[in-house]
Amino acid sequence: MAQISLHRPFPAAEVPQWDYETDVAVIGFGATGACAAIEAAGHGARVIIFERNSGSGGASGLSGGEIYIGGNGGTDVQRAAGFADSTEDFTAYLKAAGGPCVDEAKCDLYGREALNHFAWLKARGVPYRGNYLPGKHIEPTDDSTLIWSGSEAAAPFCELAKPAPRGHVIQHKGWGGGRPLVDVLEASARANGVEIVTDARALALIGDGDHIVGVIVRIDNQPRYVRTAKGVVLATGGFAFNEAMRRKYCPETFKLNDPIGDKDDGAGIEMGVGAGGDAVHMDQFFTTCPWTMPESHAYGVFVNTKGQRFINEDCYHGRVSRCSVDQPDGKVYLLLDNAHFVQPMDFARMSIAATGDSWEEVEGELELPNGTLSATMEVYNRHAREGRDPLFDKRPPILTPLDQGPFVALEMNFFSSYFSFFTLGGLRTSTDGEVLDRTGAAIPGLFAAGRCTSGLPAWGHGYSSGLSLADCTFFGRQAGRKAAAG
Amino acid sequence: MAQISLHRPFPAAEVPQWDYETDVAVIGFGATGACAAIEAAGHGARVIIFERNSGSGGASGLSGGEIYIGGNGGTDVQRAAGFADSTEDFTAYLKAAGGPCVDEAKCDLYGREALNHFAWLKARGVPYRGNYLPGKHIEPTDDSTLIWSGSEAAAPFCELAKPAPRGHVIQHKGWGGGRPLVDVLEASARANGVEIVTDARALALIGDGDHIVGVIVRIDNQPRYVRTAKGVVLATGGFAFNEAMRRKYCPETFKLNDPIGDKDDGAGIEMGVGAGGDAVHMDQFFTTCPWTMPESHAYGVFVNTKGQRFINEDCYHGRVSRCSVDQPDGKVYLLLDNAHFVQPMDFARMSIAATGDSWEEVEGELELPNGTLSATMEVYNRHAREGRDPLFDKRPPILTPLDQGPFVALEMNFFSSYFSFFTLGGLRTSTDGEVLDRTGAAIPGLFAAGRCTSGLPAWGHGYSSGLSLADCTFFGRQAGRKAAAG
Repeated sequence: MAQISLHRPFPAAEVPQWDYETDVAVIGFGATGACAAIEAAGHGARVIIFERNSGSGGASGLSGGEIYIGGNGGTDVQRAAGFADSTEDFTAYLKAAGGPCVDEAKCDLYGREALNHFAWLKARGVPYRGNYLPGKHIEPTDDSTLIWSGSEAAAPFCELAKPAPRGHVIQHKGWGGGRPLVDVLEASARANGVEIVTDARALALIGDGDHIVGVIVRIDNQPRYVRTAKGVVLATGGFAFNEAMRRKYCPETFKLNDPIGDKDDGAGIEMGVGAGGDAVHMDQFFTTCPWTMPESHAYGVFVNTKGQRFINEDCYHGRVSRCSVDQPDGKVYLLLDNAHFVQPMDFARMSIAATGDSWEEVEGELELPNGTLSATMEVYNRHAREGRDPLFDKRPPILTPLDQGPFVALEMNFFSSYFSFFTLGGLRTSTDGEVLDRTGAAIPGLFAAGRCTSGLPAWGHGYSSGLSLADCTFFGRQAGRKAAAG
Repeated sequence: MAQISLHRPFPAAEVPQWDYETDVAVIGFGATGACAAIEAAGHGARVIIFERNSGSGGASGLSGGEIYIGGNGGTDVQRAAGFADSTEDFTAYLKAAGGPCVDEAKCDLYGREALNHFAWLKARGVPYRGNYLPGKHIEPTDDSTLIWSGSEAAAPFCELAKPAPRGHVIQHKGWGGGRPLVDVLEASARANGVEIVTDARALALIGDGDHIVGVIVRIDNQPRYVRTAKGVVLATGGFAFNEAMRRKYCPETFKLNDPIGDKDDGAGIEMGVGAGGDAVHMDQFFTTCPWTMPESHAYGVFVNTKGQRFINEDCYHGRVSRCSVDQPDGKVYLLLDNAHFVQPMDFARMSIAATGDSWEEVEGELELPNGTLSATMEVYNRHAREGRDPLFDKRPPILTPLDQGPFVALEMNFFSSYFSFFTLGGLRTSTDGEVLDRTGAAIPGLFAAGRCTSGLPAWGHGYSSGLSLADCTFFGRQAGRKAAAG
């Protein structure tokens, strides 16, 4: 008898019995799986979700519940706040955010469809207060809706697309809107007749020639055989918790110590590749350190261990963090003056590395040569007083002189400070969620979406909050609908 | 009938006739394929090499013919030059050069065996003059043997392993020792009874269940079926000439315009993955710009478009170049004073971006803000006069003040200057050259070596000249021997 393995489909001819029969099996019950299931059921398919945990959630349930939405003149929330967001600008931003890893077809489609997707989410019952919260926020601490959640207003993105805030956050007091978002989606899935089987971990796909015709799941410590008349949708997340995969495909993440997700072990990527799929951009990851909290710290200046700036600090906190991780010696410094310094958040695990009544004193306390950090800050402050940053094009109001001593350098160590991360590489899929083989052809019966695929958030340096949930929810729907079409 | 495809083994049961029967088929006739064939034949196997071109060579034939060798107290050449190279130091350097992508088992094995490998090469007839050529050279312009070919003497490598020169170059007047190296290996292969079939491009592996039992090659426009009693050795090189693969796995290379190699289209990687193999570190690539020619330019200082240094310029030219390509805005500047400037080589396509009687003038001509590049050079020169570089730990004699005007900034554009590149990611193999599947198990009958694998030169930022040919020749032999053992 064939072995049951993530790494190759189990032969249908050797299945001892069919324990479940359905049209579509969805593997994983985060936002991706929920949306795939809702859409498949809505298009007439019998659907079962199999989830390894005892309930829904996944990495989505641990997120902020923020979805990146715009285009077509803007959502009602954007328009009420004065932002007429064109499809051209929205799509151009999506493509810039994808950088060298961009999937242009996915950007084009989502650019056209995001407003319809927002309407769909609201129709499912996702609540939005509808207001705009200006300023720099990682997530709203109240129940506000619309925030700036990327690098839209910062160079070079603002030159490529007219800026607009596009992070749409579920109405929910405080952080952690991902949990209620998944709850709403779960309720919608149940209302649509989706069957949900928890404590059921996927072990292998089942193949019949070139077709995927089912999946094996472990339930009560037994393999159970699921026949899918139409398709399997992989919605299993990335591989931030799989050290062997990280070592082979994304070793830069070993600089970091705080994977986020919920057992994201890459199983869906392995199953997809084992079925002939193509895993792309596997070296890409998102990371961020919550350095913009308190908000006054957003006005700080980053330097590396050579006393050099390396980024326009007005861009997205995750872009600053990702560029930080490219710097040498495993750490960077956030420089602040007395007008902007507040004790950093404990959970960020940032410490004070140096203080001084002048930048020269801070430089000396960091044991940097004379004329390095102090020259950096002299150039920065001289131009900030003129409202410009000729080196990195940081812009007002975040661009402001840091010249009111005393001064401080906060140390951010990639490994010991809180740099959360998750992986962005994964299966290559069509805009319909079909898993593509290495020639670009769809693998019959196999679909995938979310972080087990490479999608809208393809490039760590371009990530913006809400891109991953946009990708999960929208392309989850695409995959579910296409699977239902058989 | 099944399709003939790189992407999955063709079923043995559907082979219409066997056109060739052999023990071992080697695909590709560069240094890797030649060494695999010699070793397989030397261990009693019938061997046929299939080469898509009309003769041997591959990327190896276009190389400098330099092989990275050391350890066990040093080669005769190293010892004669006063370098007692311990296995510990040699191995530690190999591991540092592999960085986050290192394959420790390969480093350990080659660290122990490199001297025996050198003896083997000499026994095959590879000639070495036996002398040591001090200084900074990309390749010797005479027929010298031993050169510094990596970052051994530069930080941080010199702190991790006692430095020694380890680049061993075939005796050959001028550049281009790769061609005579392959000629010697070809003669050895022929003398060992290896059959050579040229104008024969591999189209697909042939599989029988889990075993690879042959290969299909196109000869005279017809598919020809090759039965291998013992194994197929893939020796087909990287994917620098496959734009679709670069886009999916290594998009950073699109900053560059000069792939090097000989039709390296990744076919072996595709065949290996199609047979269940695992392609790792696919984002890694080597690049270099010949900026150390003329040699006085090796004393220059690199700055990015912000006027910042970013590397100790005394490390390997390829490491400087690779770090350059990480800098923003698509270009860097090489700063020189009158004591060191000579007209750059035409083929490097570097141009003079600015000149001045002071670094302030150069700064102004580059339209950089006052106090950027000039501050960088003030700090650099002040410490260089004391023989130290507190920022990047560049060391004498390459560390020297650049203070004799007039001054010049040479512009190196990643895309329009000559930045040669080739890819480093590929199949994951055992130290015996077995192609490993995603669980780490060997795929029966399938072997690989050289740049269709991820091996000693795993990390672009750590590449050193001679690492790739060391990997190709040594692990080519390993693969050939293991294949012959059946």
